[in-house]
Amino acid sequence: MQLFRGLSGFSLTPTDAEGRVQADLLGRLLQRIQAAGVDSLGLLGSTGGYAYLALAERQRAVRAAVEAVGGQMPIIVGVGALRTDEALALARDARKAGADGLLLAPVSYTPLTQEEAFQHIAAVAEAGELPLCIYNNPGTTKFIFGEDLIARLALVPNIAAIKMPLPADGDFAGELARLRARTPDGFAIGYSGDWGAAEALLAGGDAWYSVVAGLLPVPALKLLRAAQAGDAAEVRRLDAAFQPLWHLFREFGSFRVMYVIAELLGLCQLEPPRPILPLAGEVRPRVEAALQGL
Amino acid sequence: MQLFRGLSGFSLTPTDAEGRVQADLLGRLLQRIQAAGVDSLGLLGSTGGYAYLALAERQRAVRAAVEAVGGQMPIIVGVGALRTDEALALARDARKAGADGLLLAPVSYTPLTQEEAFQHIAAVAEAGELPLCIYNNPGTTKFIFGEDLIARLALVPNIAAIKMPLPADGDFAGELARLRARTPDGFAIGYSGDWGAAEALLAGGDAWYSVVAGLLPVPALKLLRAAQAGDAAEVRRLDAAFQPLWHLFREFGSFRVMYVIAELLGLCQLEPPRPILPLAGEVRPRVEAALQGL
Repeated sequence: MQLFRGLSGFSLTPTDAEGRVQADLLGRLLQRIQAAGVDSLGLLGSTGGYAYLALAERQRAVRAAVEAVGGQMPIIVGVGALRTDEALALARDARKAGADGLLLAPVSYTPLTQEEAFQHIAAVAEAGELPLCIYNNPGTTKFIFGEDLIARLALVPNIAAIKMPLPADGDFAGELARLRARTPDGFAIGYSGDWGAAEALLAGGDAWYSVVAGLLPVPALKLLRAAQAGDAAEVRRLDAAFQPLWHLFREFGSFRVMYVIAELLGLCQLEPPRPILPLAGEVRPRVEAALQGL
Repeated sequence: MQLFRGLSGFSLTPTDAEGRVQADLLGRLLQRIQAAGVDSLGLLGSTGGYAYLALAERQRAVRAAVEAVGGQMPIIVGVGALRTDEALALARDARKAGADGLLLAPVSYTPLTQEEAFQHIAAVAEAGELPLCIYNNPGTTKFIFGEDLIARLALVPNIAAIKMPLPADGDFAGELARLRARTPDGFAIGYSGDWGAAEALLAGGDAWYSVVAGLLPVPALKLLRAAQAGDAAEVRRLDAAFQPLWHLFREFGSFRVMYVIAELLGLCQLEPPRPILPLAGEVRPRVEAALQGL
């Protein structure tokens, strides 16, 4: 099991316009990820639109995922919720349903203090009784993790990993060295932000939590394996082919672009949950061109 | 009716630990605000913890408010939700239940574009069929309203007002002049951020959307009436008495401090919804001292 190491592919969660999960379609998307040999599945992450789904629909998605790929690849389930009691309930339910790991972002409305985030995450880790990855995603949660908080959380039972955003200064090696010095051996430090994955992996990051691998697992895995083999030239060659797509991810947000990719691949014709708008028609040929380079 | 003008007092929403609204207690809190003669009630704003309540509980809170103070003071109901369909449902329900106005923040997980916020807010304004106040609160939503977007929204039917955060540069007069030049006559521009209210009102802001007026409506109303009378010296004298409380609001967040005030006033002994933690015991004497100056 490569939980929290290697390539984690984050899937969209197909729903109808009312937010009901389309379980069969979800299962098919996950089987594609599994068939490519990706190390783990990221279910109900930001790409999976977890924040836009009712709790019962999130629980249905977990059951559909376990049915489709359970036992064949580790399933990491996002259990973030505004209320601690809801996050606890989601974590317990995910374990009961057969998830292998949890992913938890400190989503908030009233900005959280470091202590509030600590208590929230520690409570979910205890209740979930599964390995948990801290989801550090200031782009969506606006919560800034201090390194003191990360060091403190890394000592909590069940907390096994962190998913970091790309460092603003691009200094992956420096950040990894600082975090490694303050966290126990075996605590896994991975990165999200697909356009920075190549450098994150070459600097020694333990995992790539990848949006693109949810729909294009084959080229993403090729890049990851080249990094694991220490072949920097090959990593950069593969990353260069992704550049037009990375550009679109940064311009429009990967969540919006993924819906276009899914349609262009003939997998599903869906729209993101409103208020998120589908990308305008004129962006479509640019996504098509970006895919052709891969 | 002074909807979106004058003093709007924002109430806490008392709940039990599971997030069930305590309707009787809520009614009593609202009657205190009404008895003080405050111009409008802000129900289910940030202070009311709307983001932490299930939709059904929010609907129960509206019914309890209408029962307690409906027809005696205008009730403005916060209808923000991550999904547009949920915000539409809340807006329709609030009108049916007897609300007088709506307050809508573009809460988000995936950061919204200006166009997404426009379509979201315009859809709620149309469905709600009540005067709507745009809730511009980057501290919680992280959404930044461009002035172009405000100008565009101000032309949408039913959109009657905006609740602004305190300007970073403190230039209320400049901001009000710019916004007034780009919005129709009668479009009301008010402010939240209690510690900036005195200057906002003296500069000509139409409303003070006040946290403190939810529990201390009498001194807040005195300040507001002095501003309406153009008595700057009296406004500043009254504001000075609030300074120790403003300091605590800025240090700990007004949401957390309000729970302590409610307890010190003997109104209720409640805790904020987790993950928000109750303030530590050592802060309590400071809140007590701040109240004694009022």
